Amino acid sequence: MQVIERTADMQSWSESQRQAGLTVGCVPTMGFLHEGHLSLVEECARRADKTVMTLFVNPAQFSPDEDFEDYPRDFQGDCDKAEERGAEVVFAPSVSEMYPENFQTYVNVETITRDLEGAHRPTHFRGVTTVVSKLFNAVRPHLAVFGEKDYQQLKVIEQMVKDLNMGVDIVGLPTVREKDGIAMSSRNVYLSSSEREQALAISRALFDAESRVKNGEQDPAVIVKNAADKISDAGLAIDYVVVRDAETLEEVPSISRPARMLIAARIGKVRLIDNTGLSPA
Amino acid sequence: MQVIERTADMQSWSESQRQAGLTVGCVPTMGFLHEGHLSLVEECARRADKTVMTLFVNPAQFSPDEDFEDYPRDFQGDCDKAEERGAEVVFAPSVSEMYPENFQTYVNVETITRDLEGAHRPTHFRGVTTVVSKLFNAVRPHLAVFGEKDYQQLKVIEQMVKDLNMGVDIVGLPTVREKDGIAMSSRNVYLSSSEREQALAISRALFDAESRVKNGEQDPAVIVKNAADKISDAGLAIDYVVVRDAETLEEVPSISRPARMLIAARIGKVRLIDNTGLSPA
Repeated sequence: MQVIERTADMQSWSESQRQAGLTVGCVPTMGFLHEGHLSLVEECARRADKTVMTLFVNPAQFSPDEDFEDYPRDFQGDCDKAEERGAEVVFAPSVSEMYPENFQTYVNVETITRDLEGAHRPTHFRGVTTVVSKLFNAVRPHLAVFGEKDYQQLKVIEQMVKDLNMGVDIVGLPTVREKDGIAMSSRNVYLSSSEREQALAISRALFDAESRVKNGEQDPAVIVKNAADKISDAGLAIDYVVVRDAETLEEVPSISRPARMLIAARIGKVRLIDNTGLSPA
Repeated sequence: MQVIERTADMQSWSESQRQAGLTVGCVPTMGFLHEGHLSLVEECARRADKTVMTLFVNPAQFSPDEDFEDYPRDFQGDCDKAEERGAEVVFAPSVSEMYPENFQTYVNVETITRDLEGAHRPTHFRGVTTVVSKLFNAVRPHLAVFGEKDYQQLKVIEQMVKDLNMGVDIVGLPTVREKDGIAMSSRNVYLSSSEREQALAISRALFDAESRVKNGEQDPAVIVKNAADKISDAGLAIDYVVVRDAETLEEVPSISRPARMLIAARIGKVRLIDNTGLSPA
């Protein structure tokens, strides 16, 4: 497996694959890989002739009070795992390669970023869409694979790719969970064992909502109230608990077609997000 | 010569050129071509194996009070002229192809767009950079050719391409002028013959500034004062007359290295811009 650090080298590598008639797949990550990331790499390798995993902890998507400096890192471990699951290249640019002096261009998806994560992290999606644009221009993939764990992010990227005609097929894959139900996240390492126990309230609330909707409940307010109570009762501070249209993320009056429940909550200093699909019976 | 209207068809065409090892050049225009545009097509055809001229009057770069609806158009004439000068493809998407319902993604270059045209036309550059991003993603060119007539636009696009790693070589070519000195512009058709006479004050002021600087004048304030007087005396309303660094467009205390004089002025309802390089002796 090859590590590439420069954008120009990445572009040449990709151009030569394309000239050879091969398809290139891309899995953008911030590293510290868990089984969730690795399931994306594996699926990408199944779908594309060549798989590039990008590994870049993107300062532009952290606000000054967030954990950019402390974000967990394990470069060599990540490369080994990615290779084992089928990546041919790890693209790992430096911060100065990605954001040189005088950098001043941003990609903004407007409507769908205003709410939920966008409301709680005002510059977050601007950072995500800008870096994904840059990574796509470096890797020039035919397809890219993202996890549904960051569901709003997935929808934002789909919108960007469509609006700007990026010509990249976006594939979203289901969240991978630990045996007890908690969504895998690089940030789970921040949780103490008692906090981790509390955090289970989030996934339990989602599973409960799934089964209520399958059993006929169609009122978003009822579903939200039940979930919010469970999460508050476990001692978490709620940022949001919502049921939205699965595609537009707009509010829905009733759950008569596929919807999405999205949750963000805090335990001490750790902020967790999770979500699930709600399909009426 | 081929006319392509759909982005997906444009992308396929370009991909097949790249797979054949050919280089693709792009000349973005809003049509109603004059010799300025055609000099860009010609130079592009010299530098690239295949030349695509894009022809799209972009609503996103006009403000509501500007001349989008009335912008002059001549589709068949433009195609004939472009073919004659070496274009293999005219990419002419519809407005609904470029901006479908729910379109919401914009590319913003921040610092260099704030001043000059950006100050007088607040959403203009956002419209330009967004459409050029989309056109580049459709045409996927190796190089693109722009005129220096829109000098700030040229610098904005260079900045965007660098910041987002678009991998397109940007070529800027000198403004083409009528025999009397006026810069060619599709908007010159709006001028009555007496207004056209008045408009000559702009290019004359630029030529005068060029020779003053060649003869040793290094004070931007002196150069600006002389030019502004000439233009006001001719009865034009000045939006700006400035001398700036030729690369950053920032203010310069003295003209000790290549600078740029930029002018925007109005005659009745017609707004004209022009610029020239100032090279110290």
